[in-house]
Parts: sequence; C-alpha cells; structure tokens
Amino acid sequence: MTGDTTVSGISIGILGGTGDQGKGLARRFALAGHPVLIGSRSAGRAQEAAESIGSGARGAENAVVATEADLVIVAVPYDGHKALLESLRTELAGKIVVDCVNPLGFDKQGAYALPVEEGSAAQQAAAVLPDSRVVAAFHHVSAVVLMDPAVEKVDLDVLVLGDDREATDTVQALASVIPGVRGIYGGRLRNAFQVEALTANLISINRRYKAHAGVRVTDV
Amino acid sequence: MTGDTTVSGISIGILGGTGDQGKGLARRFALAGHPVLIGSRSAGRAQEAAESIGSGARGAENAVVATEADLVIVAVPYDGHKALLESLRTELAGKIVVDCVNPLGFDKQGAYALPVEEGSAAQQAAAVLPDSRVVAAFHHVSAVVLMDPAVEKVDLDVLVLGDDREATDTVQALASVIPGVRGIYGGRLRNAFQVEALTANLISINRRYKAHAGVRVTDV
Repeated sequence: MTGDTTVSGISIGILGGTGDQGKGLARRFALAGHPVLIGSRSAGRAQEAAESIGSGARGAENAVVATEADLVIVAVPYDGHKALLESLRTELAGKIVVDCVNPLGFDKQGAYALPVEEGSAAQQAAAVLPDSRVVAAFHHVSAVVLMDPAVEKVDLDVLVLGDDREATDTVQALASVIPGVRGIYGGRLRNAFQVEALTANLISINRRYKAHAGVRVTDV
Repeated sequence: MTGDTTVSGISIGILGGTGDQGKGLARRFALAGHPVLIGSRSAGRAQEAAESIGSGARGAENAVVATEADLVIVAVPYDGHKALLESLRTELAGKIVVDCVNPLGFDKQGAYALPVEEGSAAQQAAAVLPDSRVVAAFHHVSAVVLMDPAVEKVDLDVLVLGDDREATDTVQALASVIPGVRGIYGGRLRNAFQVEALTANLISINRRYKAHAGVRVTDV
C-alpha cells in the first residue's frame, strides 16, 4: 500500500515493551528479521521480556532504547504516557515515534474512551515531542493473536495516521511486514481520537462474540 | 449474528430520506421487500425521491413518516438533527429510532469530527427522545455503493450500538437484509462517538485510495 518504501533492516524500539501489546509487536517484528529493542523502566524486566521473545530481541531501559533504535513505538499504559515522553524528548528528536496508546477507562459496563486534553494520545505525543515525527498506528492489534504461535497470518488492517507522508509511508510498510497485516493510511493526526477510542468498541465486540476482533478496510 | 430475530415485513421510515445516505438505505430496504417511507420537510421532494427509488417506496413529510413507520432511521444532516427530533418526540415514542448521523466538519485538510455536547449524535437523540429506543448504526455505508445497481453485494459490516438488547438485535437483523452486509453489535451508546467520527477517517481513506471504504470486523 506504500509503493517502494522499504523498512528493511531498521531497528525498532518499543517503549513499554514488557506489556502485552508491546511484547506482541516486538515478537512479530523480531520474527520478521528486524533488530528489536524492548524498553522498560527496569532493564532487568526488559531483558526478561526479550529473552521470552527470542529471535534476537534485546532489552534495555526506555532511555537507552529511545537513543539506539531507528524507530520507536510507544506502547505504555496511558497513565504514564505523557510523563515518559517528556522525559525522552531529546532522545526521540528527529525520529519516527509511533504511538499506539489507547486512552480507555473500564467499569462494570466495559470499556469507554477517556477524554484527552490534546485531542488524543497521539496528539499528546506530538505536543510533547515537537522535534519527532509522530505517527499513530497499531491500536487494534490483539496481543493474544500477536503472541499466538499458531497464528501465522494476522487478519487485520493497521490504520496509520499522521501529518508527515514519508513517516506514515514508513509505518505502513512496517505494519505490512507482519504476515497478513496491511498498513493503511487512515488520515491526519487530528483524526486519531476515534481510532484510539474504537478499541473500546472492539472490546465490546470481543465480549459479545468471544472473539479477538480487528478491523479490515473494504474496497482498498 | 442475531439468532432468530426477524424483521420480516416491518416498515421502515427514513427521516432525511432525500439525502444520499438516506436514499441509498431506502433503496436497499425497498429492494429487500420492506415497506419504505421516505421523509422530508417537503412531501413533494419525498415523493420524488420515492419515485426515483421505486420498489414500492413512498414519500411523505417527516412527521407522517415518524407516525406511520414501525422503525425510523434518522439520516438528516447533523445541523438539523436535534431540532427535528425534538419536533417529533411524540411521534417517535415507543419506537426503535436508528441514528446514522455523523457530526463532521470539513476544511481544506478534509473531514474532522465535531464535538457533540451529549457525547455523540446518537446520545443526543437518546437525550431528546427519552421514550424511544435509540440505536446507532449505518454510519459507514457508502451512499454511492448503496445506489449503484451494479453492486449486488455490499462489502461492509454495520456496527450497531445501543443499550437495549432487543432493539440492537432488531437493527442487526435489519442491516443483514442488505446482501453482503452483516449487522455486528458494536457496544453501548456511550461508545457511539468514535463510530460516528471514524467516518472522517474513511473519507481520508477514500481520498487517498480512490475508494468507497467500509469496515469489516475480523474474527467475528
């Protein structure tokens, strides 16, 4: 979906890579042959997660990952999102930063979208990291599916949003290295809120249908 | 997707049925054998739209349609949404009211979601119509595809949201009378905003890929 954009060989850092979503993405990128750096507040926990994934993944503190990786994915809980990015502004300058954070709340009726002052987690990242190239993507990937060795092809489109065409092309190409996945351009960053929030609907769908629901875009 | 819920023979009224989205839905429901009533401020324009659709569709003023139809779809522009529903509160009492309104703004960068005081157009409808059974659905249907005689099967899932299980089951069954379409439960009404707003992303996708994009839910 992105012409001849190549992401061959680029190293991928994952902040919050010890969480389910980050670990699942780390696993798939490592399997696709990318150097993968898992970040965590604790280097020890990051190394444990990397070992559990294998395929050459390494673990380190978030700041080391932000410094060393070519492209950085932000997969931390929304709670710590803003503070972590503020602390890594220098390390992340000039880089493509892929935000896949879903600001959600949960109560007895299920999941719901939290309001975000900046509009969305991705716009919050862009506000905090004015010198980075912020892209929003990977919101709807199921951690369970990404971790499941029985799932060879992941039946899912990844919506990629951003205002920097070269950066969104790169992230679309990156999404497409996961077998079965297509990276589809999904609009500008100002339209990221609803893509993040749609995860609440997917959680409702999962509950109703006992599924790991994802989204495909038709006619593309 | 809804067990044995049957919608056989129920009549469908479409407020704002002379617009593209309403007319497209009217056409598909009429083709599926449902009595269809197209509503408009002007009975004359409603009748013209009904004639252009054929298949037994009839046209009348919105208030007549709201009174006569078993189930009423709201497909008016967001601008007039609240005022119209307020004016039809009595006529719509007790009925399933399906809101498919997308509150969007447009500028030179494309479409974006408008904030809605009540949370979403669907929640606005529920607030204005306390005695109706409000369901949100049909946000992502492409009017062009619905009107195209060459498209026999519409490649699309319709996300159906609401807090009244019997009502959402009915609307899921109704969506599924359109060949190719599945009606999928998509969560409670409090999660309608992002489904409405996602239409802005689909418009961006349409522009980038020269498509009439829709959404399919995977693993369901």
